[in-house]
Amino acid sequence: MTKGRLEAFSDGVIAILITIMVIELNIARGTPGDAAHDYRALLGIGHQFFAYVLSFAYLGIYWNNHHHMLHAADRVSAGILWANLHLLFWLSLVPATTAWMGETSFAPWPIATYSAVLLCAACAYTILQAAIIRAHGPESRLRTAVGNDRKGKVSLLAYTIAIPMAFVSPVVAGVLLVGVALLWLIPDRRIERVLEG
Amino acid sequence: MTKGRLEAFSDGVIAILITIMVIELNIARGTPGDAAHDYRALLGIGHQFFAYVLSFAYLGIYWNNHHHMLHAADRVSAGILWANLHLLFWLSLVPATTAWMGETSFAPWPIATYSAVLLCAACAYTILQAAIIRAHGPESRLRTAVGNDRKGKVSLLAYTIAIPMAFVSPVVAGVLLVGVALLWLIPDRRIERVLEG
Amino acid sequence: MTKGRLEAFSDGVIAILITIMVIELNIARGTPGDAAHDYRALLGIGHQFFAYVLSFAYLGIYWNNHHHMLHAADRVSAGILWANLHLLFWLSLVPATTAWMGETSFAPWPIATYSAVLLCAACAYTILQAAIIRAHGPESRLRTAVGNDRKGKVSLLAYTIAIPMAFVSPVVAGVLLVGVALLWLIPDRRIERVLEG
Amino acid sequence: MTKGRLEAFSDGVIAILITIMVIELNIARGTPGDAAHDYRALLGIGHQFFAYVLSFAYLGIYWNNHHHMLHAADRVSAGILWANLHLLFWLSLVPATTAWMGETSFAPWPIATYSAVLLCAACAYTILQAAIIRAHGPESRLRTAVGNDRKGKVSLLAYTIAIPMAFVSPVVAGVLLVGVALLWLIPDRRIERVLEG
Repeated sequence: MTKGRLEAFSDGVIAILITIMVIELNIARGTPGDAAHDYRALLGIGHQFFAYVLSFAYLGIYWNNHHHMLHAADRVSAGILWANLHLLFWLSLVPATTAWMGETSFAPWPIATYSAVLLCAACAYTILQAAIIRAHGPESRLRTAVGNDRKGKVSLLAYTIAIPMAFVSPVVAGVLLVGVALLWLIPDRRIERVLEG
Repeated sequence: MTKGRLEAFSDGVIAILITIMVIELNIARGTPGDAAHDYRALLGIGHQFFAYVLSFAYLGIYWNNHHHMLHAADRVSAGILWANLHLLFWLSLVPATTAWMGETSFAPWPIATYSAVLLCAACAYTILQAAIIRAHGPESRLRTAVGNDRKGKVSLLAYTIAIPMAFVSPVVAGVLLVGVALLWLIPDRRIERVLEG
Repeated sequence: MTKGRLEAFSDGVIAILITIMVIELNIARGTPGDAAHDYRALLGIGHQFFAYVLSFAYLGIYWNNHHHMLHAADRVSAGILWANLHLLFWLSLVPATTAWMGETSFAPWPIATYSAVLLCAACAYTILQAAIIRAHGPESRLRTAVGNDRKGKVSLLAYTIAIPMAFVSPVVAGVLLVGVALLWLIPDRRIERVLEG
Repeated sequence: MTKGRLEAFSDGVIAILITIMVIELNIARGTPGDAAHDYRALLGIGHQFFAYVLSFAYLGIYWNNHHHMLHAADRVSAGILWANLHLLFWLSLVPATTAWMGETSFAPWPIATYSAVLLCAACAYTILQAAIIRAHGPESRLRTAVGNDRKGKVSLLAYTIAIPMAFVSPVVAGVLLVGVALLWLIPDRRIERVLEG
């Protein structure tokens, strides 16, 4: 019961965050005159579109992993509810920073801010994971499934490097962010394997 | 459980996409002065309104067919989760292209882009359908229900023709898009029949 | 199962429609300069606020009655799915017409358009009700609960009168619309009574 | 069933209200020229961001407490449905007043209006709580859990003081609002304790 409502609320928030970014994708707005009617309008939102695809992937990954993680949970404590809200707070800053990156054609400060938001979201996810494991004891299925959480640690490191790197080379920072997304697009089979085993 | 959350998330995204298009329906914005207070404001959003009705129908059709398709599924794999997110990604581009068509009074490039988005969404739907069938084996109910998928193939063909046709005759392209919508407004009775039989 | 997803999707759409109207409630936008910082900004959105309250009440009423009606339904056919989407289409036009009424300080054309949208929504609701009753047979609980549907008929009449009346006396048209809302704020006890009996 | 749909609808509305506030967080909008590309754009939305964090916390608290309260309820009457809609109405005014506070850098009138909306929401919550207790009888678990509702009474008092205080000292009013949020961020353990006991 409680778990179902936590999932439903999280699904709702993530679904709305994904689709709210669509409002920013105003094709004709950035291109004046006749150009707003043809392919030049599409070219004009190229940066916004790329930023949208990246954030869609990230929010999709969070939904997917959240889904798997909650699947391994049997009960929900007050601490888990707050840890979940804390994660949703950082995810809720993704649309605003995505729009900023797109509008400024990936300027250093927006990339660094975006990376910092992803870093905070990743920390919040780790805290939520720890809260669920704590509530289920050291022998819990999730504990076994997560293991040493190498992927999680690599992501935290990549976000941390991307923040200063945005001012040195925005391209390298961008490659780091895309790389982490690709790393996670392979779903968390660890949990699936343990659940089935 | 897993299936329920997949359905809930998809429902949420589609519901928000449908209603986000409503924000664009700003009746008084396009008409200046006193005309914003009477029937001329309504006439001024005629194109936007027609584009909205078409996209409402398409998203309604996707929700309906998605609903029937998932009803025939018993379990959900990681591949199905990603195939579903992929479908939602293309559907999420419908509001932006709908607004572009409406604002430009159905110019060639917006119609072609809209058709391309529908084509990609239809391909993503076919991929999702294949993933569900693969997860359930060749004897699955969905496999039997889908049959040779004539309606799906006709739709893919119509979208493909509509893309170049938008530059030759926007009206013919529009008729193709409306035609496919009407074709699908008759719900997928094949699945219903097999499920009941 | 099927019924659950129909309810969830309808709840999602109605919840989003209600909250989308909030975006229009931009307190400081309509008032320039220093006045945007004090009570004059609140006075400046008086019409918008009143229009919002009315539409919040109407959408709340639809959610409530939809809830009761579906509660009395045991199964859902393809026809019911489409009749439900048809209802949601008309409800989705409520935010745009609400905003138009508010911006024009209740000019005749916006009031008439709003009344027409409510009339179409009420017809769509009646069609959905008939589809559910047809699917359950003449002895169905919903059939008994609805009875001769006096409240529904009075509402249809009031909306129909409000359309031309908006051009004669906007105040009388407004009173009619508020009156119907008050009539329905008393929930549909008929259904509750039959269900409990 | 009925309770599930009430929870789902409330979750949907609260999730959308939280995320709708994100639309206002337009980082680059308030800062002209080159400054829109660097840290000055972030400084420029400092007030909006603080107002957003406060309202995110408040809506999160309402979701959390609503969750606990409904958990203790066994059945839902028509009166509870309306009391719940009444609560959602006042919560729906949070985004508009949050945006107003942020845009005016916490001017007296916006703070007073925001406090008044929170006061009305708190009253609506108390009414909903009373409706649920009434429906379950004086021996109900919720009745025992709520006890003398000291936290609720302190909150009502703080909101009431914050309204006039906004004109005397906006800072003190702000401290009151932040204080109540912190008071509630400790979840309602009373209910949890009684439910488990």
